[in-house]
Amino acid sequence: MARPEAIASGPGSRALVVDLIRSSGPISRGELTVTSGLTQPSISNIVRKLLLEGIVRESGRVPSGGGKPRTLIEINPSALYAIGVQLGYESMTFVATGAGGGIVARQLVNGAALDSPGDVTDRLVAQFEAFVAMAGISASTIAGVAVVAPGPRSIDQDRILRSPTLRGWEGYSLSERLMERLDVPILIDNDAAAAAVGEFWTRRVPRTETFAGIYMGTGIGAGIIIDGALHRGASSNSGELGHVSIDLDGKECFCGNRGCVERYAAPAAVVARADQHRDDLMDLSLSFHEDAVAQDFDKLARAAVGGHDVAARLIEESARFLAAAVVSFANLLDLDRLVLAGPGFAVAGSVYARAIRARLVDSAFARQSHGTVVELAANPRDSAAIGAAALVLQSSVSPGHGPQLIRRAQR
Amino acid sequence: MARPEAIASGPGSRALVVDLIRSSGPISRGELTVTSGLTQPSISNIVRKLLLEGIVRESGRVPSGGGKPRTLIEINPSALYAIGVQLGYESMTFVATGAGGGIVARQLVNGAALDSPGDVTDRLVAQFEAFVAMAGISASTIAGVAVVAPGPRSIDQDRILRSPTLRGWEGYSLSERLMERLDVPILIDNDAAAAAVGEFWTRRVPRTETFAGIYMGTGIGAGIIIDGALHRGASSNSGELGHVSIDLDGKECFCGNRGCVERYAAPAAVVARADQHRDDLMDLSLSFHEDAVAQDFDKLARAAVGGHDVAARLIEESARFLAAAVVSFANLLDLDRLVLAGPGFAVAGSVYARAIRARLVDSAFARQSHGTVVELAANPRDSAAIGAAALVLQSSVSPGHGPQLIRRAQR
Repeated sequence: MARPEAIASGPGSRALVVDLIRSSGPISRGELTVTSGLTQPSISNIVRKLLLEGIVRESGRVPSGGGKPRTLIEINPSALYAIGVQLGYESMTFVATGAGGGIVARQLVNGAALDSPGDVTDRLVAQFEAFVAMAGISASTIAGVAVVAPGPRSIDQDRILRSPTLRGWEGYSLSERLMERLDVPILIDNDAAAAAVGEFWTRRVPRTETFAGIYMGTGIGAGIIIDGALHRGASSNSGELGHVSIDLDGKECFCGNRGCVERYAAPAAVVARADQHRDDLMDLSLSFHEDAVAQDFDKLARAAVGGHDVAARLIEESARFLAAAVVSFANLLDLDRLVLAGPGFAVAGSVYARAIRARLVDSAFARQSHGTVVELAANPRDSAAIGAAALVLQSSVSPGHGPQLIRRAQR
Repeated sequence: MARPEAIASGPGSRALVVDLIRSSGPISRGELTVTSGLTQPSISNIVRKLLLEGIVRESGRVPSGGGKPRTLIEINPSALYAIGVQLGYESMTFVATGAGGGIVARQLVNGAALDSPGDVTDRLVAQFEAFVAMAGISASTIAGVAVVAPGPRSIDQDRILRSPTLRGWEGYSLSERLMERLDVPILIDNDAAAAAVGEFWTRRVPRTETFAGIYMGTGIGAGIIIDGALHRGASSNSGELGHVSIDLDGKECFCGNRGCVERYAAPAAVVARADQHRDDLMDLSLSFHEDAVAQDFDKLARAAVGGHDVAARLIEESARFLAAAVVSFANLLDLDRLVLAGPGFAVAGSVYARAIRARLVDSAFARQSHGTVVELAANPRDSAAIGAAALVLQSSVSPGHGPQLIRRAQR
């Protein structure tokens, strides 16, 4: 029979405990027992190991009702650092976080563009070394580096397949090439999935909520978190919100489907429509060059937020298209909360949030039972890189669950 | 951090073990340990209790590699019976299953139609008593009765709210009224959710699969099963596939949204389109009466399968609409398998399955990584009632998980 709640074995309990300590702030063993649903001996055992490994530390005592004061446990922020890299067409973002998820360093460099995968890997390796040196992070404290990029991944998670923006990467095993060059654990993942995990992690979202991170970069994706766990799907291609059709006989998409919302709402679609209004948009000096879609989109978004009529209409139209797909998404999953993340929401995120909220209020199926909270990421441009770092910490704290950090064989 | 696998506490382990025993057929304790990921002492403990309660039984021994033969455990089919009731506008289906899920009795009677909730409850109670007497099931072996119906439910799960077909039921607490009349545990749920659980239960689907049961009755719904657990969502309104929009500016729907696939693909939409081709459909003697939508739809479906051109075009069009929504569904959840259940698929289910398969093969986002298996329910008309019985067994074996059987206070 179907289990309404999923079942745990050992390693998952450890991840749960770390997650609860991280999300609650300083917490006692007793509170951990209550919140986790695990037994007292299990909690004692897990906490003891985490203390030994330096992942958590004791952080003081608080009086308890009559008895001896309770010792509080918290994440040890300087124990481990995680490096997240968002690899995009136009930019590469490096982020370093401590074990608690706080950002300790950030750097933005040129993206992959049309360079060969080998050249991009060279740059990534050089940049990584410069970045950790700049941040003053010693190699021994690096839990790993996760590189996230748009596009579906293969099931064995070591390749980036058919990325719509990174051409020529098909069949290129980035993780193997990185392993040859870097002596740290490596992980490759999808940017939208990483951003969702990062956004979930930085909020105190109840684990019972159905949570989605919507990511707009070049394309539109989503990460779905159910019962505190990222739903990946068999081929790790869950959450392809950009390929929800809003018009069954609509525009053809590279994916083979028709009417995909990405073809209407993503930056390239907005800039293409702007091209039909060149005369009204002269003042924005858009380049309309295919390598500058993100810059042109940002200019339009800035103008829209600043009250430029034509630009505002274009952005609002994009938001209306996305909102239609989001209502279908909410109806399928009974979403409680969604967060807008990624560079596409960096400038005019509030326009999108407003349009999505309005359409959910008007037409979400469950609106009479509960609302769906729509929030903006605090750092929309860095969400994926921050999320990548979160994936590293997750994988290093709880090996055997989710995408695995892989490391070259020791000689 | 997000857990890639969810965590268990006690009661879930029990449900998992029962589920594994049920789905695998006779199985040894050793195999249970391996498949469940639980410890050997946990398995021994759970199996001992299940044997004591008569839910499982020992079913013989098989030789093992050199050592003493292993004892096999199986579900005890006569320990408990579950009664499932599908409450529809046009019909009410009663099903009784044994603890293993096998159907022991089935009966179809008139549906709720426009009768008052009180009158329908009277009939349901009388029919329930006649049904269990006919099936020779004694009251003491009834684990409970689950009544499932279309429409969203309230969060406290004891009402059927805003059911599009059962008018006048708003605010009527069916479970309380049934509790006053029947001295057995009661459960109320959504028909599509129940059907998905039932279909998942009757297949040996690996628990790692993302599974969906698509249910077409009067409307179109779905139940989503992830990691072996039904995803309900905060308000238990997950899986509203019928309210995935296939045209953002399309037809208005009662739900407040536009372009909902239900307005294009469900039986009422097909019959409404048939109305525009009355001349070509004279031979089918359709009634076009609003109380006879299901019969008219069945006639059209039968004619379509039999090669009637106009009828075939209408059914294929409906299938094309549904397939478009299913691709979006598959893209959001990376579906591995879906099953078509419910009376809407009883006659021309294979036409729908073919259309959905074709569109998934052409345009599902993850099609290069994996296919999505599309299957038909063995008993499409009874899926929801069978699923309801499955929910009873699930709730009685593993209280505290999922919808709860409730029972009147003992005096």
